[in-house]
Amino acid sequence: MAKKQLNIGLIGYGFMGRAHSNAYNKVNKFFDLEYEPVLEAACARKKDNLKAFADRWGWKSVETDWRELVERDDIDAIDIVSPNVTHHDIAIAAAEAGKMVLCEKPLAMNGREGLEMTQAIEKAGVPNMVWFNYRRVPAIALARQLIDEGRVGRVFHYRAKYLQDWTISPDLPQGGPTLWRLDADVAGSGVTGDLLAHSIDTAIWLIGSVDKVSAMTETFIKERPLQDKPEVRKPVKIDDACAFLARFKNGALATFESTRYARGRKNQNTFEVNGELGAVYFDLEDAHQLQYYDHRDDSHVHGWRTVLVTDSGHPYMSNWWVPGCVIGYEHTFINALADFLKSLETGEPVRPNFRDALETQFVCDAVLKSAKTESWESVGR
Amino acid sequence: MAKKQLNIGLIGYGFMGRAHSNAYNKVNKFFDLEYEPVLEAACARKKDNLKAFADRWGWKSVETDWRELVERDDIDAIDIVSPNVTHHDIAIAAAEAGKMVLCEKPLAMNGREGLEMTQAIEKAGVPNMVWFNYRRVPAIALARQLIDEGRVGRVFHYRAKYLQDWTISPDLPQGGPTLWRLDADVAGSGVTGDLLAHSIDTAIWLIGSVDKVSAMTETFIKERPLQDKPEVRKPVKIDDACAFLARFKNGALATFESTRYARGRKNQNTFEVNGELGAVYFDLEDAHQLQYYDHRDDSHVHGWRTVLVTDSGHPYMSNWWVPGCVIGYEHTFINALADFLKSLETGEPVRPNFRDALETQFVCDAVLKSAKTESWESVGR
Amino acid sequence: MAKKQLNIGLIGYGFMGRAHSNAYNKVNKFFDLEYEPVLEAACARKKDNLKAFADRWGWKSVETDWRELVERDDIDAIDIVSPNVTHHDIAIAAAEAGKMVLCEKPLAMNGREGLEMTQAIEKAGVPNMVWFNYRRVPAIALARQLIDEGRVGRVFHYRAKYLQDWTISPDLPQGGPTLWRLDADVAGSGVTGDLLAHSIDTAIWLIGSVDKVSAMTETFIKERPLQDKPEVRKPVKIDDACAFLARFKNGALATFESTRYARGRKNQNTFEVNGELGAVYFDLEDAHQLQYYDHRDDSHVHGWRTVLVTDSGHPYMSNWWVPGCVIGYEHTFINALADFLKSLETGEPVRPNFRDALETQFVCDAVLKSAKTESWESVGR
Amino acid sequence: MAKKQLNIGLIGYGFMGRAHSNAYNKVNKFFDLEYEPVLEAACARKKDNLKAFADRWGWKSVETDWRELVERDDIDAIDIVSPNVTHHDIAIAAAEAGKMVLCEKPLAMNGREGLEMTQAIEKAGVPNMVWFNYRRVPAIALARQLIDEGRVGRVFHYRAKYLQDWTISPDLPQGGPTLWRLDADVAGSGVTGDLLAHSIDTAIWLIGSVDKVSAMTETFIKERPLQDKPEVRKPVKIDDACAFLARFKNGALATFESTRYARGRKNQNTFEVNGELGAVYFDLEDAHQLQYYDHRDDSHVHGWRTVLVTDSGHPYMSNWWVPGCVIGYEHTFINALADFLKSLETGEPVRPNFRDALETQFVCDAVLKSAKTESWESVGR
Repeated sequence: MAKKQLNIGLIGYGFMGRAHSNAYNKVNKFFDLEYEPVLEAACARKKDNLKAFADRWGWKSVETDWRELVERDDIDAIDIVSPNVTHHDIAIAAAEAGKMVLCEKPLAMNGREGLEMTQAIEKAGVPNMVWFNYRRVPAIALARQLIDEGRVGRVFHYRAKYLQDWTISPDLPQGGPTLWRLDADVAGSGVTGDLLAHSIDTAIWLIGSVDKVSAMTETFIKERPLQDKPEVRKPVKIDDACAFLARFKNGALATFESTRYARGRKNQNTFEVNGELGAVYFDLEDAHQLQYYDHRDDSHVHGWRTVLVTDSGHPYMSNWWVPGCVIGYEHTFINALADFLKSLETGEPVRPNFRDALETQFVCDAVLKSAKTESWESVGR
Repeated sequence: MAKKQLNIGLIGYGFMGRAHSNAYNKVNKFFDLEYEPVLEAACARKKDNLKAFADRWGWKSVETDWRELVERDDIDAIDIVSPNVTHHDIAIAAAEAGKMVLCEKPLAMNGREGLEMTQAIEKAGVPNMVWFNYRRVPAIALARQLIDEGRVGRVFHYRAKYLQDWTISPDLPQGGPTLWRLDADVAGSGVTGDLLAHSIDTAIWLIGSVDKVSAMTETFIKERPLQDKPEVRKPVKIDDACAFLARFKNGALATFESTRYARGRKNQNTFEVNGELGAVYFDLEDAHQLQYYDHRDDSHVHGWRTVLVTDSGHPYMSNWWVPGCVIGYEHTFINALADFLKSLETGEPVRPNFRDALETQFVCDAVLKSAKTESWESVGR
Repeated sequence: MAKKQLNIGLIGYGFMGRAHSNAYNKVNKFFDLEYEPVLEAACARKKDNLKAFADRWGWKSVETDWRELVERDDIDAIDIVSPNVTHHDIAIAAAEAGKMVLCEKPLAMNGREGLEMTQAIEKAGVPNMVWFNYRRVPAIALARQLIDEGRVGRVFHYRAKYLQDWTISPDLPQGGPTLWRLDADVAGSGVTGDLLAHSIDTAIWLIGSVDKVSAMTETFIKERPLQDKPEVRKPVKIDDACAFLARFKNGALATFESTRYARGRKNQNTFEVNGELGAVYFDLEDAHQLQYYDHRDDSHVHGWRTVLVTDSGHPYMSNWWVPGCVIGYEHTFINALADFLKSLETGEPVRPNFRDALETQFVCDAVLKSAKTESWESVGR
Repeated sequence: MAKKQLNIGLIGYGFMGRAHSNAYNKVNKFFDLEYEPVLEAACARKKDNLKAFADRWGWKSVETDWRELVERDDIDAIDIVSPNVTHHDIAIAAAEAGKMVLCEKPLAMNGREGLEMTQAIEKAGVPNMVWFNYRRVPAIALARQLIDEGRVGRVFHYRAKYLQDWTISPDLPQGGPTLWRLDADVAGSGVTGDLLAHSIDTAIWLIGSVDKVSAMTETFIKERPLQDKPEVRKPVKIDDACAFLARFKNGALATFESTRYARGRKNQNTFEVNGELGAVYFDLEDAHQLQYYDHRDDSHVHGWRTVLVTDSGHPYMSNWWVPGCVIGYEHTFINALADFLKSLETGEPVRPNFRDALETQFVCDAVLKSAKTESWESVGR
């Protein structure tokens, strides 16, 4: 049966451009779907680099001005993987041009931008998704399933960490093509938008809305050279680390922490939920596992069980290999894309959409504000 | 060689009375020391229970009024394991009677009491120790040693948790002989004094003084029956859970959390230190291990190593068995007692003393205050 | 720069056909190579299934008779993923036709077949590889690197397990399209050829040649229905489980065990090497990690370190994502294919080749023979 | 209530003398029992060392000739912790003198000796126990309980390891007061009697009798200095390492391995049972945990659960502390002693008795024989 073709225009070609291109290439090989993405056009400012990228990944054409891409009639969906500072204008223009919009996280530089983007998207009524890819880790999806099945019950506690250690060296530059995440003008914030946004999205998905927060941030290395001009050193304006206390609307308590200075932790994105009936624990460094504690077990065999999330009965896994064979980082994007394409078949909107990501953005804003005011701050709407 | 006898008067006979009695019985069998504690007198109000306790553990005499015990000439040292609300008066009276004083943690109901106690102790100039027994877990002592050796370097992050789950059931009563820790009038606070005091003592020992905190507390179950009168239900006044952000004076950031509602966690007292050069992680549920990450290792073998802390070269372990043979919970008290007795030999004061415990008490006070004011609070001195 | 095209003819389309097709699709997207495989033709007997498979994966043409494929002038390399019983004739025919040959493991039904195949391959002088894909797990490649660096020293012990639990149910049929691994006439043996062959290949790669073995095998379920004719039950002739003792030529001792009846183990392929200076441990269920113990560490920090094998300095990983981002099962095939293509560039033969796989086959033969004779058996050459 | 006094005569004062003395001191403090052991007399040849030992541990008198001790009327029970070569004569003399006999493992130098001892004991009809203390690790006792509850079902596989690394250095001497375990004339064998005897006792207790074995042993360091005369080097006659395949009478397959050359393993005594319905795994280096897999769980939450064996409902633990508080190595002796004393109350013989230990001895004999004959050997009776 012939597939329905969905012509994609990708904006940006860095690390995420690679991850998304891979997803477009692979999704139909592993998932049975009506729709098939076509790698129609890739867009970026530096033509040479772009051309090499497009050739490698099979993008059929290139554009150096995203505004032209957005206007092209042959494009059905715009996928935004360019730096955060560009999301706002592109998303709104794409929505106004009637394109479907897929946007990398974090949604925007701040809640104000995010709100405008969300309003534009909703006004246009176009299918949309924000790539909080970790919702598509099978073990995290299983955590959600266990909660939905009532296995956790009333939630007392949530605790999330997202720890890395790659910016400890003071010699690491900031800004430029691969280190724009360290430049507040391009990234909006540091670990809050880059890492905590993931933690917050997961938390909201699993537990519900956050009511208020008390946060602290720190910038450990105060000055760094520029990647583009190593002889120039500039103050670092991003948050190197951020921790916050939170209260969910349902009464659960939470702690969140993120840093790029946690020596020894490479990509330790963890969460734990403690409920009346059970508990779950996840660590992205062991992404193929979910820890689950069931209080209703016979008491002498109470224990945390390590669920190896590779069975065909586990979320997404029937599309991949056989029990005991793990999938990796890149598959979260493929799973997400499959969900997006499936949503076009079923008409059931995919999540998280712009509205969901906006909620996460508002929490980030409250966190950053609280760190400045040194007060508890309510999450805006 | 005949040992110097040290006559002990123990006040209280509950769980901690048992742990301490065991320590007095065993310490000279495993440690070579000049001093030998003599189980001279045990004291508590309920004579029948006390008598059975004294018989079992070998206490030579009993007293039902601690004031009389404190005045006895044959007593060299008073060991206080009675509920928190009694610590203040006993410690001061014992100090004024010229006795050495060993006191269970937390030091006092609050900082004001603790200060008075510390002043009395220091005025009397008597040897004194507060039983923060976890400093004597070999793996925690090893963590301190690694830090002292410069293996961690500048500290960026500290995170501590102390999680239990034994009070989730709303049917659990409060107050009474074995559940006074749930009665704020007797315990002073809930998890803050009971569990977080341990975490704070360890943190100060490893990292240094805490500057300021932002805290939240919660009481999940609002009303419980009394243990003594099950037909009466009273409001619960303790903190069931407490989490706080902290900044150390040396610039390190910290998160602390404690609760008795963390389904699945029995006695999960953990800490992690992330420094420029290395990191350590400890979990009391695996008390025989210390996790250590050394950034100076060759990069392709970077990794968290699990140090099995049972070798004769590890703290305290030459006094016990052979490599691979673990010790348990009770041994932390024996190790602590050995340190106390050794300090009498050497004249080098043992730590933590009342002054150290007072610092922890001030942090607890700031935490509880912050939870009420919903503001950052500086730690008092 | 235009790539050199390498036209592939694939024989077989089951689970392994999928894994290999994926590798052909992806290898040039992640590795910089002179050669580029072209999915020229796929071959299998059932035309309808084959056609669907070829469409999905992008094979340009199909064949239903492997002899015709082998003769096609446009084919440069034959890749054999059909059942074990077919390997012998195909490999020899392909070699005689001057094709490069890539063959799934185990090499053959037995050593005699394997020897004939190897002789044919070597006589033809064609590039060849056997897909023992686990050599391309980055953590296993790192184990080899650590041994090569002299970090393990004189080896005393090797122990390997390969445990699964998917055949415990007596209702599971044997034979047929997806269960031919349970049919001795098609598979040659049970776990010995399917799982232990992996363990043996890894062992020989890491430690050296095996001298002699003492083995036992068992078939727990004596009779099973046929997958194709469920109403017919036939005796099970494969080994459900196999364990053996071994002595390496260098004097090291080993234990090997494999089964599909290890309840709770899904794909637990483990090995441990204990040497004078260090030790390594690997478990495929945590494939992103290597455990390493260095006896030359300071003694108080001796410990097994968990190396998260995701850094760019780790084998293969610079081609994938960033530290902390794992790859999955399928990547081992891509890494292997990259090595094969690289070997065409450099002229340095890739390993394991047919000769290497033959050595593993001889160990398997000795193991099966020993289980029958109940005696120690030397490994043939 | 006054306790019934049981006067103990202990023969030997090394590492095990210490562990047993501690048990006699502590058992009544933690267990409610009718009987109370009295440390009546300790016996060894070197009077000075013995005296110091007796003073430290509270033994009321000393003897330097075990024959005199055995004849003393005031002694109720003889506890043998002297080197293996002495067990035979002492046990028989003690039995003939009508004493209860407690004997350290392994029972004897070989099965012939063990049989004579068992016959003497049974003829005398005296209470008797062999100190296979690991049966009293709460987690191992829990494993037995889970099997008894039918949670494992038909057993397919058993695998046991007992790995240490303390004899790798060629400079380590043999023989003498603390290293007699390396002298075959005193110890009978190397790791087979010292370590594998534990593994075999546990296996028989959990699974049942062993039918036949195929073994290999190795002595890696061929010559060592004598501890008593370092200038003399003698051939090493013990087995440094031993591995064997086994078949249980009930059809289950097993692998066993033990060594003191497993770099990185300090006291890694592990076993795993794979049954039709469930599985258990234990590692003495994490002695407070039992891993349990329940195939009857809902399939999407299948997983190995880590049972923290510290709850009051777990074997032995109600006598100790509270959930989350672990016990250590020495407690296994106290638990065993409590079981022995309880058996005097109830008249229900304690296990393992001499007859049970004899069965283990016969397996050891078959293992050592098989290693010599390089054939499968049946276990004697």
